[in-house]
Amino acid sequence: MNILYDARVDGPLPVVDKQALLLALRTAVPDLEILHHAEDLKPYECDGLSAYRTMPLLVVLPERLEQVQTLLGLCHQHGVPVVARGAGTGLSGGALPLSQGILLVMARFNRILEVNPQGRFARVQPGVRNLAISQAAAPHGLYYAPDPSSQIACTIGGNVAENAGGVHCLKYGLTVHNLLKVEILTIEGERLILGSDALDSPGFDLLALFTGSEGMLGIITEVTVKLLPRPQVARVLLASFDRVEDAGRAVAGILDAGIIPGGLEMMDNLALRAAEDFIHAGYPVDAAAILLCELDGVEADVREDCDRVATVLRQAGAREVRLACDEAERARFWAGRKNAFPAVGRLSPDYYCMDGTIPRRELPRVLRGIAELAAEYRLRVANVFHAGDGNMHPLILFDANQPGELERAETIGGKILELCVAVGGSITGEHGVGREKINQMCAQFNRDEISLFHAVKAAFDPKGLLNPGKNIPTLQRCAEFGALHVHHGQLPFPDLERF
Amino acid sequence: MNILYDARVDGPLPVVDKQALLLALRTAVPDLEILHHAEDLKPYECDGLSAYRTMPLLVVLPERLEQVQTLLGLCHQHGVPVVARGAGTGLSGGALPLSQGILLVMARFNRILEVNPQGRFARVQPGVRNLAISQAAAPHGLYYAPDPSSQIACTIGGNVAENAGGVHCLKYGLTVHNLLKVEILTIEGERLILGSDALDSPGFDLLALFTGSEGMLGIITEVTVKLLPRPQVARVLLASFDRVEDAGRAVAGILDAGIIPGGLEMMDNLALRAAEDFIHAGYPVDAAAILLCELDGVEADVREDCDRVATVLRQAGAREVRLACDEAERARFWAGRKNAFPAVGRLSPDYYCMDGTIPRRELPRVLRGIAELAAEYRLRVANVFHAGDGNMHPLILFDANQPGELERAETIGGKILELCVAVGGSITGEHGVGREKINQMCAQFNRDEISLFHAVKAAFDPKGLLNPGKNIPTLQRCAEFGALHVHHGQLPFPDLERF
Repeated sequence: MNILYDARVDGPLPVVDKQALLLALRTAVPDLEILHHAEDLKPYECDGLSAYRTMPLLVVLPERLEQVQTLLGLCHQHGVPVVARGAGTGLSGGALPLSQGILLVMARFNRILEVNPQGRFARVQPGVRNLAISQAAAPHGLYYAPDPSSQIACTIGGNVAENAGGVHCLKYGLTVHNLLKVEILTIEGERLILGSDALDSPGFDLLALFTGSEGMLGIITEVTVKLLPRPQVARVLLASFDRVEDAGRAVAGILDAGIIPGGLEMMDNLALRAAEDFIHAGYPVDAAAILLCELDGVEADVREDCDRVATVLRQAGAREVRLACDEAERARFWAGRKNAFPAVGRLSPDYYCMDGTIPRRELPRVLRGIAELAAEYRLRVANVFHAGDGNMHPLILFDANQPGELERAETIGGKILELCVAVGGSITGEHGVGREKINQMCAQFNRDEISLFHAVKAAFDPKGLLNPGKNIPTLQRCAEFGALHVHHGQLPFPDLERF
Repeated sequence: MNILYDARVDGPLPVVDKQALLLALRTAVPDLEILHHAEDLKPYECDGLSAYRTMPLLVVLPERLEQVQTLLGLCHQHGVPVVARGAGTGLSGGALPLSQGILLVMARFNRILEVNPQGRFARVQPGVRNLAISQAAAPHGLYYAPDPSSQIACTIGGNVAENAGGVHCLKYGLTVHNLLKVEILTIEGERLILGSDALDSPGFDLLALFTGSEGMLGIITEVTVKLLPRPQVARVLLASFDRVEDAGRAVAGILDAGIIPGGLEMMDNLALRAAEDFIHAGYPVDAAAILLCELDGVEADVREDCDRVATVLRQAGAREVRLACDEAERARFWAGRKNAFPAVGRLSPDYYCMDGTIPRRELPRVLRGIAELAAEYRLRVANVFHAGDGNMHPLILFDANQPGELERAETIGGKILELCVAVGGSITGEHGVGREKINQMCAQFNRDEISLFHAVKAAFDPKGLLNPGKNIPTLQRCAEFGALHVHHGQLPFPDLERF
């Protein structure tokens, strides 16, 4: 499968003499584990976006800060590109290796250095798994809020690099909102601290700039995350609708009432049927759409909010509103949602997961647009989304073995993202740009804005050695891609008025 | 008064030929209002930090974007520094003019361009006053959350430049958390959009980087802010304590219970007595400290939370807990707090307001430290703070006419900020660095970090023409200042163990 794959790295990559590099590394860092045989490199040729594959030149697995520092100094000196990765669960090819670069695997930095219940923070190494932080904090009644679907496997370093979200980020924020401090190494091996133990930090907000920068500005060596008290109770309501638009109005109604649910998720008929077949969550398979609304907090507040949300849902046209009657049913309701991607995968040999964000009010129009594009290109699209955030995950179903389907999937995927930009949204919510959406960045930003990104990148990494070819396209790429720059909706999407 | 004033601008400023510049400006932008007589310039010689004064070379009062664009192009071409300002209410000298620079007053950009109740945002020009946004949104039941004390007068452009806070930022966040999008002009006159109408934006987070950058990266020309539904009810509890430490523990207790108050403020005995004398708010004048805790939301939630908070307060040792019995009493409780600064001003000919942030858990230690420093330097210090955020505003009382008091106030102020840094906090919470705290930045950051700030600044403004000499010190200044670099508490404050 080769969907959307673009083999060109922007600009010429230097050809590195592998044997000379290996020798230099072994001399400089004798105790560093280095993989260089093809069979050892194979498992590292892709991340969670398996459609993109490249064999790295070398893989290194450091265990100590000094090893990373020396390695970076050497790469900086010799002009060798470096791609950092944690567990490799990313969905946009952000950790895709370079054939002429080193893949720096930070997985062995997996120690929890401190859990501080008074200060409500945890200080951890970058290779610690997201869920492991919450597990370590649990004895104190605390947890780390951002919960990407991959939280069992993904590492906090990768979460910071991609500014990961999750089903609870409407209420609890993205990774950037749950960080206090990040320690990094620059490509020159300098150790910097971004942020502070206090809630604000003077000077420019480099912590926010760094979060989500996809490994292009520095290598993360330590992360201090905020911990929150675990809510006393969480209840989930399931509402079913005969019309997708009504579900969209219900989302607006809940938020307009000043209620901030712990999670607010929507699935359309194709997605919910797939999930029901797979998980038997108890979803109404004849509904056009369902909403899952979780309310968490203290008992009395949650009870009150459940009543208010149920009223709003009915007013918006819900034909049925069910409160999960116990923890087991609540877990089932969520299991259906959390397994929606693999469930949809059972309907089709291949699917392509998109990650656009739109202003919430544009939900009905964008859904109509997606339906029309699906009909036009004769492909099915299942819609699963973080409705509260306006973060959509359309899943484009196709069969790569059918001639033309892959290309049609690629085309419709690009059009959906351009539609998101045209209504004032963006090409990614929580999966990042990585390698996958680098061309769409040309539609999102203008020439001056992309130049500014490069200038900021150069402030951290003047030689451009950290994860080159990801996240920020070159101006040359944009010229070749010939993007229609539908900047923040100012230039209309050609077909926007149709929807 | 000359407290903490440091007349040196970092690096040599070019000497600008005022008459030639005036002529060039009048030719390029014939309809631009320009002030150049000493008597016209006088009102602009300082901002809210009146201890720092400089007469600007010229003041310009543009009304249209194109005027600003042409002006900036001309300044860029001729190497003339530009300082932007809104209402000039800032408390750290961020809008202090330069004797060889243009003061760009954006106050006439005062139109509210759009209030969108469906999208829950308002699009406004930078000279719109903070409170005017909430007033325009009020008919839709919406408001703009950040509420600095100066909200009647301060402009949204200045709020963005300083990342302003307010008494409600514990729950509703700083300015950066309430923005969707900012349009700026670079010093070269390029128009850029940072952020998007959706909740996330791909690429580096330049919106967060820009917010709080104190006019050093670009000129704000339009701001899109988020609007929130106004809470149905708000109640405030007043708790009095015989020991300041108990009040500190109560703050931790409330937050540990998972309650996020709309506001959570502390005042010590000196501050609350001053406020009571001035406002007659009904504060217990014999208490060592009081806490004001506001709870907002829907009726039933707030009632429940009030009960829970009252329990926590009593457990922490509050000798009395009072719920404001009506709106009038609630307004009185807050009026005392909001007028604490002028109230303290009645106790002393001069006072100096600090703005340090510390990890909340360090509150008791830092309060002990401040008390000991006050005794040592024979000055009174009143403490007023956003306790929930760990943002302290110690007010140092002195009389500039008494020989030596000003110097002692200056010394103790510096020591308090260094103490904040030593316990892991920072030298500013919401007032910014500006001109005032530029030396303390040398204590907050190391050489590599300050170099990185300069590199980021250069990415936006290579010639360094935007607000030079504010926010980020030169390395030379730090060398001359001879700062003890107490970086993130790693190097101990010399006297830290005392407290």
